[in-house]
Amino acid sequence: MKIVVDGMGGDNAPAEIVKGAVEASAQTLHEIILVGDETKIISELTKYKYNKEQITVVHASEVITNEDAPVKAVRTKTDSSMVKGINLVKSGDADLFISAGNTGAIMAAGLFILGRIQGIDRPAIASTYPILGKGVSLLVDSGANAECKPNNLLEFAAMGSIYMEKVLNIKKPAVGLVNIGTEETKGTTVLKATYELLTKSSLNFIGNVEARDIPKGACDVVVCDGFVGNVILKLTEGLAWNILKLIKNKFTDGMLSKVGALLLAGKLKELKSEFDYSEYGGAPILGVKGAVVKMHGSSNANAVKNTILKGIPYAETNVVQMIQNSVLELEEIIISE
Amino acid sequence: MKIVVDGMGGDNAPAEIVKGAVEASAQTLHEIILVGDETKIISELTKYKYNKEQITVVHASEVITNEDAPVKAVRTKTDSSMVKGINLVKSGDADLFISAGNTGAIMAAGLFILGRIQGIDRPAIASTYPILGKGVSLLVDSGANAECKPNNLLEFAAMGSIYMEKVLNIKKPAVGLVNIGTEETKGTTVLKATYELLTKSSLNFIGNVEARDIPKGACDVVVCDGFVGNVILKLTEGLAWNILKLIKNKFTDGMLSKVGALLLAGKLKELKSEFDYSEYGGAPILGVKGAVVKMHGSSNANAVKNTILKGIPYAETNVVQMIQNSVLELEEIIISE
Repeated sequence: MKIVVDGMGGDNAPAEIVKGAVEASAQTLHEIILVGDETKIISELTKYKYNKEQITVVHASEVITNEDAPVKAVRTKTDSSMVKGINLVKSGDADLFISAGNTGAIMAAGLFILGRIQGIDRPAIASTYPILGKGVSLLVDSGANAECKPNNLLEFAAMGSIYMEKVLNIKKPAVGLVNIGTEETKGTTVLKATYELLTKSSLNFIGNVEARDIPKGACDVVVCDGFVGNVILKLTEGLAWNILKLIKNKFTDGMLSKVGALLLAGKLKELKSEFDYSEYGGAPILGVKGAVVKMHGSSNANAVKNTILKGIPYAETNVVQMIQNSVLELEEIIISE
Repeated sequence: MKIVVDGMGGDNAPAEIVKGAVEASAQTLHEIILVGDETKIISELTKYKYNKEQITVVHASEVITNEDAPVKAVRTKTDSSMVKGINLVKSGDADLFISAGNTGAIMAAGLFILGRIQGIDRPAIASTYPILGKGVSLLVDSGANAECKPNNLLEFAAMGSIYMEKVLNIKKPAVGLVNIGTEETKGTTVLKATYELLTKSSLNFIGNVEARDIPKGACDVVVCDGFVGNVILKLTEGLAWNILKLIKNKFTDGMLSKVGALLLAGKLKELKSEFDYSEYGGAPILGVKGAVVKMHGSSNANAVKNTILKGIPYAETNVVQMIQNSVLELEEIIISE
C-alpha cells in the first residue's frame, strides 16, 4: 500500500511531517510518499536514517495555506502539495491521503477531485473522541457541515458505524444523536425527523444522547451537525487543557503539595496523554471516493506517525466501498418518509 | 424584600429546599416564603431553629413534576407550588421566585403569568459558567430556545450584559458569539446576521468566540442558541466529573500514589468545588416581567442557600426595568437591517 502525506500542510510543516513519516516508516512496510517542496523535504529527510525505497518525494511547487479560500485554492493551486497528493489517490497511484493543512481545502479537494460517494449528500469529518480510560467514540460530523438536514445526519450515522465496525473493530457500534434531552420529542425539527429516520434504519441506534454523557462513552458513534461537533471537540480540548493547568498550579502551590506533586508527576503525565489528540491519529473524511484523513493543524511528529499507522487499516478495509454499499438502504429510509 | 421559594420543585424537595431556606435565613434579613404542601414543609421546618417571622409557608395542594408537559401543567395545575409561587411575584407580594422544578414549566409560568418584557421576543436562561480560578461567565441562552433568530441572539447579548454589569458588577462586560471560527464570515446564516447586529449595538462585542476559549474566560457574556448552550453546559459538567474521577483513580492507584493522594486531598477538594454548580447560585430567566431564578434539578441545601443569597442583588438592582429600557435601542438595530 502507498500512503501519500502532504508535506507542506499544518503549523509544523515540513519538519514535523517529515519526522513523523520517518518514524512511521520504521513501524510499517508500506510505502510513504511525501508531496511538497522537494528541496525543503529532502533537506529534512537527510537528518534521519530511513529506508530510501520506502519513502519517496513528489515535488509540488505550491502550498495551500490556512488563509486561502478553500474552493478557490483547490481550483487554482493545481501544483500544490494538497491537490497533487490527493490526485495520486484519484489516479490509483496511492491508497490514502493525509494532511494537516487547511481543513476546508481538504474537504474541497476531496469533493472536487475524488468526488462524493454516489448517494451520500454531504461528506463529513469523523473525529475520534477520547473516553477517559475506555478508548474512543467517533464524533460525526465534527466540523464540515455547520447546517444539516435529517438525511445528512442519517448518513453520518451510517458512515460512522461502518468506520467504527471495520476500522476500530467495535461490533454493532451504538449510535447516539446529540440532543438536549433523551426523549424522542426533544430538540429541533431537524433532530426530531432524524430520530425517526434512525429508528427505521438497521443501525444500532440507542436514541438521543445528552452532552454530559458523551465523555462517559454513552455511545460509539456520536451524531451531530458540524457546528455542534465543532463545539464539542473544541470545548473538550479547551476544558481539559484548563483543568490540567489548574491541577498543576494547585499541586505545586505550597510545600506539602510540592512533595505530593513530585510523587504524582508520572500520573499527571498519563492523564495528559489521555487528552493528547496526537495519540489518536487523524480524522477521516467520510463520504468521498477515497481514503482521506485530516490531522490537527498543530500536529507534531508523533501525531503524524500515529495518523499514518492508524490510517492503514482504514485504507485496507475499504470503508469507501462499504459506504457505497450501504447507500441503497439509506435512500429507502429517506424516501419512505 | 420577599423571596418565594418553590418548596416542592427538584429531586430533593422538600427536605433540601427547606434546609437551604433555613440556612439562607441565617445570612439575610429578607423574608422567605416557602410554597408547597404545608404539612410536609412544616414537618421539615420543625427540624431546625430559625426566625419564625422570617420564614412563612403558603400552602399549595399540587406539584408540577418533571414528567408534566410544561404548558399544560402551568395551565391546569393552578394550585401548584410553582404557579402559586410565581403569582406572588405577579401580584407584587414578593420580589423574587426560585425553583428547582421542571425547567420548561418555570419558563412557561414566567411567560404566561408574568409575561414577556415588551420588545423581548424570547426570554432566555442565563447560566453562570465557571472560569477556573477567575470567576464566572454568563451563558445565554443555556437551554430555553433550541432554535433562534438573529434578533433573539442580540436580545440575549443585551440582557446578559445588563445582568453581568448590574448584578455581578462587571464593567462593560465583553460579549462573545459562539462560533466555529473567529472570522466574521464563519458559521451559519443566522450567526453571520447576528454578528452584524452585534457590531451595530452599543454592547462591548468582541466578536466570535470558539468553544475552546470559553473555559479560559474569553468573554463575560457567552451568546448562543439554547441548543448549543445546553451542549456547552452539560458537556462541561460531564467532562469535569469524568476528569476528576480519573484523577482520583490514578492518584489512589499504587502505594507511592496513595501517599501523594493523601497530601493532595485538600487540593482535589478545592478543584471539585470550582466545578460545583451549587456554589454559583441559580440561573435567572431573563426577559420576563419579574425576577425568576431556576436552580439545578438536583440542588442540595447549599445550592438552595446560595441561589437565595445570590438572587437578592438580582431582584434589588431591578434588572427587569433595565432590560425594558434597553429594548428601544435593540429594536432600532433590528429594524435598520
